[in-house]
Amino acid sequence: MQNIDLLVRDVRAFNSYFKTFDKVDVWISDGKILYIDRKKTRECNAKSYIDGDDRWMIPGLIDIHMHIESSMMTPAAFCDRLVECGVTTIVSEPHEMANVGGVQGVLDMIRAGENSPIDIFYGIPSSVPSTKPELETTGGVIYCKDMERLKENPAVACVGEVMNYRQIIRKNDLEISKFLKKLRTIDRLFPIEGHCPALVDLDLAKFLYLGINGDHTEHNIEELRQRFAGGMFVEIQEKMLNCEVLEFIHKHNLYEYFCFVTDDVMADTLQTQGHLDALVRKAIKDGFEPAQAVYNATFTPARRMNFFDRGALDPGKKADFLLLDALDTFSIAATYKDGSCIYEKGAPARTWNNGTDFAEAYYHSIRLRMQNEQTFHVKAPIMEGTVRVRAMEMRDGSTRTAERIVEMPVQGGLVQWEQSGCLLAAVLERYGKGGGIGFGFVTGDCHKRGAVATSYAHDCHNMLVAGANVKDIALAVNRLIELQGGMVAVDGGQVQAELQLNIGGILSGRPAAEIGAALGCVRAAMEAQGYRHYNPIMSFCTLTLPVSPALKLTDKGLIDVKAACVVPLFV
Amino acid sequence: MQNIDLLVRDVRAFNSYFKTFDKVDVWISDGKILYIDRKKTRECNAKSYIDGDDRWMIPGLIDIHMHIESSMMTPAAFCDRLVECGVTTIVSEPHEMANVGGVQGVLDMIRAGENSPIDIFYGIPSSVPSTKPELETTGGVIYCKDMERLKENPAVACVGEVMNYRQIIRKNDLEISKFLKKLRTIDRLFPIEGHCPALVDLDLAKFLYLGINGDHTEHNIEELRQRFAGGMFVEIQEKMLNCEVLEFIHKHNLYEYFCFVTDDVMADTLQTQGHLDALVRKAIKDGFEPAQAVYNATFTPARRMNFFDRGALDPGKKADFLLLDALDTFSIAATYKDGSCIYEKGAPARTWNNGTDFAEAYYHSIRLRMQNEQTFHVKAPIMEGTVRVRAMEMRDGSTRTAERIVEMPVQGGLVQWEQSGCLLAAVLERYGKGGGIGFGFVTGDCHKRGAVATSYAHDCHNMLVAGANVKDIALAVNRLIELQGGMVAVDGGQVQAELQLNIGGILSGRPAAEIGAALGCVRAAMEAQGYRHYNPIMSFCTLTLPVSPALKLTDKGLIDVKAACVVPLFV
Repeated sequence: MQNIDLLVRDVRAFNSYFKTFDKVDVWISDGKILYIDRKKTRECNAKSYIDGDDRWMIPGLIDIHMHIESSMMTPAAFCDRLVECGVTTIVSEPHEMANVGGVQGVLDMIRAGENSPIDIFYGIPSSVPSTKPELETTGGVIYCKDMERLKENPAVACVGEVMNYRQIIRKNDLEISKFLKKLRTIDRLFPIEGHCPALVDLDLAKFLYLGINGDHTEHNIEELRQRFAGGMFVEIQEKMLNCEVLEFIHKHNLYEYFCFVTDDVMADTLQTQGHLDALVRKAIKDGFEPAQAVYNATFTPARRMNFFDRGALDPGKKADFLLLDALDTFSIAATYKDGSCIYEKGAPARTWNNGTDFAEAYYHSIRLRMQNEQTFHVKAPIMEGTVRVRAMEMRDGSTRTAERIVEMPVQGGLVQWEQSGCLLAAVLERYGKGGGIGFGFVTGDCHKRGAVATSYAHDCHNMLVAGANVKDIALAVNRLIELQGGMVAVDGGQVQAELQLNIGGILSGRPAAEIGAALGCVRAAMEAQGYRHYNPIMSFCTLTLPVSPALKLTDKGLIDVKAACVVPLFV
Repeated sequence: MQNIDLLVRDVRAFNSYFKTFDKVDVWISDGKILYIDRKKTRECNAKSYIDGDDRWMIPGLIDIHMHIESSMMTPAAFCDRLVECGVTTIVSEPHEMANVGGVQGVLDMIRAGENSPIDIFYGIPSSVPSTKPELETTGGVIYCKDMERLKENPAVACVGEVMNYRQIIRKNDLEISKFLKKLRTIDRLFPIEGHCPALVDLDLAKFLYLGINGDHTEHNIEELRQRFAGGMFVEIQEKMLNCEVLEFIHKHNLYEYFCFVTDDVMADTLQTQGHLDALVRKAIKDGFEPAQAVYNATFTPARRMNFFDRGALDPGKKADFLLLDALDTFSIAATYKDGSCIYEKGAPARTWNNGTDFAEAYYHSIRLRMQNEQTFHVKAPIMEGTVRVRAMEMRDGSTRTAERIVEMPVQGGLVQWEQSGCLLAAVLERYGKGGGIGFGFVTGDCHKRGAVATSYAHDCHNMLVAGANVKDIALAVNRLIELQGGMVAVDGGQVQAELQLNIGGILSGRPAAEIGAALGCVRAAMEAQGYRHYNPIMSFCTLTLPVSPALKLTDKGLIDVKAACVVPLFV
């Protein structure tokens, strides 16, 4: 009689190929599936048993495109939460920490995740900075030699998203171009992730020609069609998960060529809605067959990353699996990793990490002196009269901005913007590299009162502040300096809400629930100040992202994203 | 304006994802697809042009499970023919030459294919011998250290079919088991091909558990279902290509998990019917959607072998493609490899190889002295009376045999088998390793008169002869010794047909057409002698294969395949 470690009795196990749930017993040996017993006539000697009680058994969820830093949590706290969400494998690109701390930041992120109950693989940050160095000041730079070094790390699974998509298809001397050239000679199988919103036709083909054949950004249907048609692996994140997209995939039977990913999930969303499980749940709610939704959160992502040891309940594959109480609501009863239970609904939450910490220097990363209100006086090119400025117009539903020209009066050489319908925005270089400040104006669906400041500001994570008056602006900035990073919402001279992110200015060492609650308060405060966006945090934190159309702000000033250059504030 | 090397104008190009044929221009640069231009509004500077004339353009065919030696041709002659069949990439397992010449035979096969116009990759012969060494004498053995050495060769793409499937799932000290253990520590992505006819349930699961997850053998529908359900990649060869199988695949939407392969195509079939193109043609004829048939002869085989650089007409992939005059008849007008034409219908056939030959020793591999008729007298365990013998019953439509007990008279201590309805069969060890002979009797759908001898006899390629009288038997054997290998059909004291295979006793250095014609004559002679089988050559040459059920014959005697042991001739 066969000796096994674990017998999972009477489950409805997912078959990835027939897309069925079959009533079976599952035999597990040495952390791997040994046998899916449909006939249940064979006997075995099992060291332990689980009674499946006819629950659904599916492979553990696999998220191949995401950034742990978006949760603002340490890898340890983040993964403690992920087990509850049924996610057993992630590929995280430590892009934010790379911007803060360079290759050492990446290595420290990897080290901080080492005791995780789930498997964390990594993408090599390929675009740090995300565009030309003259457009912003970054804390760290990832050079070709750094990428080569990271490639040797066994936890590294792919090249993280290549973001400088307009430059790389032209003659360039980008670090990533040098690395891709080397990569072709040493590894033909290594996946290369892309980031190419709005890229189409010949430009898209040139991007694909370089071997960059994954994309997780936001598209209209024609852009999406071109990606599938060109052999690109499409990664659908929450903002792309809508009925029109799902219907397109279904109509053209494109199930094999896409998966669900989270990209960026913030602490409070993670706490209240979940992670990749939330996407599966949403897809099912939007009419996707549950079996198909499971397939695209397990099988296709595993295949994309060449994870041939997981993603299906097959003999020889890892016994990473979930038990579901209900399929249609995707209610997770338990999570197993390598045949061991790492989460059980109702059981006390466990802390897996043994406390691997970040070095002391990470806690002193905001290298700015306290600022006074004068810092935020915007000088005009004239002494008196009227100026026309380029304002960034923010819109709900998107992280794209539009350029809008606004007239503002000038008195004593200073712009009198307070009555213009715009907020003043400033980005303060905070790595001790000159302390430059870029000024801009914001209008549209952002807040209307007080001030909001953040050191979590894509991609360089300098300090961004935007407010309706300089008093609140200065208060927000100074509070953030005291906190050594985080997000602060100020109104009427009072701090309304704050989240401390004092590890590199972007992460907190606190538990998931605590961070989620604090971030939720900041979000609520922003909404109370008039912010109108489905995700005010994301909207605000990407105001500084110079690869996201159309007009953005860095410490170097206003950036015309398409032209990839600094443009003057005054027209 | 973009500079490119080749512009293919006005074709109906296959899109692997939408499974459509789109009217486009195709831009090729540096041997790779650059752009599939649907709009045809962009201009480019092309060094050369092809007018597609609305012909179909599809990726070059990819055959990932086959053995060049089955064609009895050298790699050079074989590939000269393949270009006409539209095959641009193959994965050949030099299993036969490994049995003849060990690892040196494998390396010499690889060297002999080096100047091929198409890409030849190799499987590591993993089962040489195919079963326990005590069941047959082989010319060469492939040890673990040989497999490790071959793994380092950049032309090696996978582990070739693991054939000792009943032994490997039990406690064993097989060389392949040692190698698989090492392989797991150095390469988790390397595909491992299997060979496991009739293996089901827990035994199949144990085979999969070892990471062996491809199978190309013959199955009934339940066996096929179990393979798909277990995550096995199914390779459909000609004998599995029937309406029932295709209907099963269609009904359960299993297109992603299988491909077409040829496994063994003999010289005359190759000449008259073609190669992988013949399977595509047959699938279409049997009702498979042409687009789907193309997909399973290009995209899925490429993915199975981690050939991420080919298998679809995508930007960045190799410009390996075919132009078809007609899709429904799969009529190939031209074959392109890396953007260069290697075949054009109607143009004079080209010889690509610069004449890489096999070393002299390969031409003297039949180490047997001439035999007289006494050699073939079968001694009985009694002097007079009747014996009951195990005969191998051959059946049309299969390479499986059945055991049948037959009574035969004995006179003077010798079996008088001539009137028994059976042929006498003998396998003569031919590598100078003792010169043993195994005797057996054959009945059923084999020939009825004369004798047939072959040194092409799976897997060890000792000399097999079967005949209705000892005179013809001895003649056939002696002629084969003179030829230093091949196949001979003899009747009434006359050689009826012969094919010389004097390279290692299994290959000919002659051109494809000549070998095909000679083999056709042998086949016709066998049929004239009463052979009734859809493929008499394959049927006869696998009579010696001790991993193909149920009763087979080697130089060690009769083999009970399931029990994997030698069984006595006399019951």
